[in-house]
Amino acid sequence: MHGLGNDFVVLDARAHSLPLDLAAVKLLGDRKRGVGFDQMITIERSDKADAFMRIHNVDGGEVESCGNAARCVATLLMRENGKDAVSIDTLGGWLNARSGASGVITIDMGEPRFDWQAIPLSREMNTMSMAYSHAGYDKPGGVNVGNPHVVFFVPNAEAVPLAEIGPQIEHDPLFPQRINVEFAQIIDRKQIRMRVWERGAGITRACGTGACATLVAAARRDLSERKAQIVLDGGVLTIEWGADNHIYMTGPATEAFRGEIPPTFWAALHDAA
Amino acid sequence: MHGLGNDFVVLDARAHSLPLDLAAVKLLGDRKRGVGFDQMITIERSDKADAFMRIHNVDGGEVESCGNAARCVATLLMRENGKDAVSIDTLGGWLNARSGASGVITIDMGEPRFDWQAIPLSREMNTMSMAYSHAGYDKPGGVNVGNPHVVFFVPNAEAVPLAEIGPQIEHDPLFPQRINVEFAQIIDRKQIRMRVWERGAGITRACGTGACATLVAAARRDLSERKAQIVLDGGVLTIEWGADNHIYMTGPATEAFRGEIPPTFWAALHDAA
Repeated sequence: MHGLGNDFVVLDARAHSLPLDLAAVKLLGDRKRGVGFDQMITIERSDKADAFMRIHNVDGGEVESCGNAARCVATLLMRENGKDAVSIDTLGGWLNARSGASGVITIDMGEPRFDWQAIPLSREMNTMSMAYSHAGYDKPGGVNVGNPHVVFFVPNAEAVPLAEIGPQIEHDPLFPQRINVEFAQIIDRKQIRMRVWERGAGITRACGTGACATLVAAARRDLSERKAQIVLDGGVLTIEWGADNHIYMTGPATEAFRGEIPPTFWAALHDAA
Repeated sequence: MHGLGNDFVVLDARAHSLPLDLAAVKLLGDRKRGVGFDQMITIERSDKADAFMRIHNVDGGEVESCGNAARCVATLLMRENGKDAVSIDTLGGWLNARSGASGVITIDMGEPRFDWQAIPLSREMNTMSMAYSHAGYDKPGGVNVGNPHVVFFVPNAEAVPLAEIGPQIEHDPLFPQRINVEFAQIIDRKQIRMRVWERGAGITRACGTGACATLVAAARRDLSERKAQIVLDGGVLTIEWGADNHIYMTGPATEAFRGEIPPTFWAALHDAA
């Protein structure tokens, strides 16, 4: 499945646990010899939520949460149980999802945090318009939406040398846990073009939390409505910062194919590389 | 499926034709939004052979033949009909395949051609040891094994600056149809390390015809036996230049997964990109 080109192999581990070791995850994630994915998702049983969603990168490391993956898992669970709302537990906390018109899925991404210690920054600062500049880009908004973000507002997002300055900002000492970096161009009050440098991942085509951070940072300065479309390289997400202070992310989830892995496939794990 | 990491989506078009247009092939080949492949294979009905194998690149262009794909299709046909030998027709001609021990497949790649017009070269030349040099590498063997190759014998294949000189040699005026370029290091008379610059594709991990060309060029100069292992980046192929003058390529074919594409997937073809 994929959400705006962020692609997943989704495994159902509710009836049987999947004893996948690191070598097996890497082989599954190999785009030439396995299936290939950005993240591997295992759906596990949960006592409280409809399911638990576990997320592995291809290097075997676990990720706490992922909005694009949540929309995919929610789609599967809704199809299965006929409901139009499901809850998904993750290492990063509980997510509520509901289905909308024409197959899109809305995820409640929780509340944003603006205090400098929560982002976190290394020193006290007004996060609505931060006293920070780099390479001529200045006064970003700072926000934590489950992970830390700075959002720079620019007249032309395409002109930003993102591959160059993204990693420089990510590693600035102001950000003790490093930072996700967005460059946002206000098209109008209901539409924002945004490009993202993801912490640890670089330029990606669709960062759900980056879209959330962008809307919140823009609306906080009254540069946009509290509901707007965020135009990413990979497609469009609709983000709403609700009256309940929760952020709602709406976007597609697509099933590309569904299949089985034959027992013979795993023989490669025992071959000499 | 894949053969030494050269990966394929194999579609069965024998019962029903598959009206896949260019956009559909590209979407299927998209490693993030579709399934992803180096080549898409359609198995079609044949009046003469067990099946016809059609090969598309992800850009929609058709390829005449591919040894790695032939091993994969042969595996499927043998499993289906319980035979240990099958014939496959292609745009590049007829291929005979037989199964060997431990799941490997042997493909009859036909006869090599050594005359300078058949390779082709732009001027008459002895192809066993060609009067040609580039960047200090000289006297390659020339051979056509369905497509044109030059094979340079070097003391250390890893030391060759392949990404730099590969394209220079490919486009030398001596080769009017351009050329596949191999650098071969004789380990012993039964084992050859080889790296390849594929015409139009660049450095690849497993070129079946390159392995055939390498063995033939080596055996012709008595640098190796007529049967040897060719050690490619992606794995090992065993090549035999038989007493019948045919080249036999033996290697693995692996099924990674098998599945279905849901009707909803194709909706993306109608979305705005």
